[in-house]
Amino acid sequence: MPGKVKFDLFPDEPATTREAIMKATYDALCEHGYADLTIQRIGDHFEKSKSLLYHHYDSKDALLVDFMGFMLEQMEADVPIEETGDAHEQLQFAIGFMFLEMIGGHNDGFLQAMIEMRAQASHDDAYRERFTANDDYLIERYVDIIEEGIEAGVFRDVDPEPVAKMIFTTIGGAMTRYITSDDPDMDTVHEELLQYVRARLLPEDAADAA
Amino acid sequence: MPGKVKFDLFPDEPATTREAIMKATYDALCEHGYADLTIQRIGDHFEKSKSLLYHHYDSKDALLVDFMGFMLEQMEADVPIEETGDAHEQLQFAIGFMFLEMIGGHNDGFLQAMIEMRAQASHDDAYRERFTANDDYLIERYVDIIEEGIEAGVFRDVDPEPVAKMIFTTIGGAMTRYITSDDPDMDTVHEELLQYVRARLLPEDAADAA
Repeated sequence: MPGKVKFDLFPDEPATTREAIMKATYDALCEHGYADLTIQRIGDHFEKSKSLLYHHYDSKDALLVDFMGFMLEQMEADVPIEETGDAHEQLQFAIGFMFLEMIGGHNDGFLQAMIEMRAQASHDDAYRERFTANDDYLIERYVDIIEEGIEAGVFRDVDPEPVAKMIFTTIGGAMTRYITSDDPDMDTVHEELLQYVRARLLPEDAADAA
Repeated sequence: MPGKVKFDLFPDEPATTREAIMKATYDALCEHGYADLTIQRIGDHFEKSKSLLYHHYDSKDALLVDFMGFMLEQMEADVPIEETGDAHEQLQFAIGFMFLEMIGGHNDGFLQAMIEMRAQASHDDAYRERFTANDDYLIERYVDIIEEGIEAGVFRDVDPEPVAKMIFTTIGGAMTRYITSDDPDMDTVHEELLQYVRARLLPEDAADAA
């Protein structure tokens, strides 16, 4: 089976002013939540002069939209593409990464920032457009794996997109429940999603044996 | 098949001061979003004297926690319990209610309020406790239907709870994607969830025929 991959929004010390601002924004967001976030509070987590914040961004809103883009770019870059194993193993790995690393890997601050930003997308077009692109990108990753599996005869000849959307939607629900509920029971949802994948994608004899 | 049931957070004119405050809060939340909500803005949607708001609530936070409770109580009361048909039909109806009425029934304001409140639960214990209770309540509703189905021989003899949690988590993800994405494709996720239910719960010969 493929190896374990870590997810960390800030693996290294920030190398640029923008990265330092992103980290200060992240830290302030984790401490105060989106609704109570102010430039002042972001500045409290920023080691350089606060005037730099105003130099780089016209407003708090502009800074937060940039932060949302930064966070999603990092996520898109860090979700690993695993090419060892067959398509079923790759799909198990991709789902496992989300449940074991993204959700279970002590990224609570990241998940909190995600749900806060996602909530903005319910009433702000700039957020919604960017989240839609992120959703499409991650769904496409599942589509690619499923198509490969169909070509190789590992999976049944299904339409890949509905299955990919189901996987993505369930993982999204799991991320939200994990960070907003006292009793999310993620292991169970992880296992059920793998059951769905087996029932929906494996040839009938293989699904019975699994 | 069971009939259609409507969901409406405010089906009638508010009968009490609390209800009128809840409606004003809801309207202000839909207009401004959680982060930009102020007592002043809630007051703008309130027909009676603003001083009543301060009389009833010590702070904006106290008002919003009460609003969150009100919203979830209404939801718990309004999710219909359908007792005609067998357990499979009841489960299809329960899932259909969430996709066709809750998500597809022009409740965008309600769904927006839900994701905004849910985001608060990521960093506020009062919200998290209440949402956990709501999750448990709705999961238990699915558990009840699945248990009935097992007893009646309509469903296989599975552990009902994991299946109920999977259904609930996917619907939660669907509600979030619907209100925060430009391309949620809910019909597809609805159909995949019904496929999961058939594969996971129906006896093998019935699942093949379905």
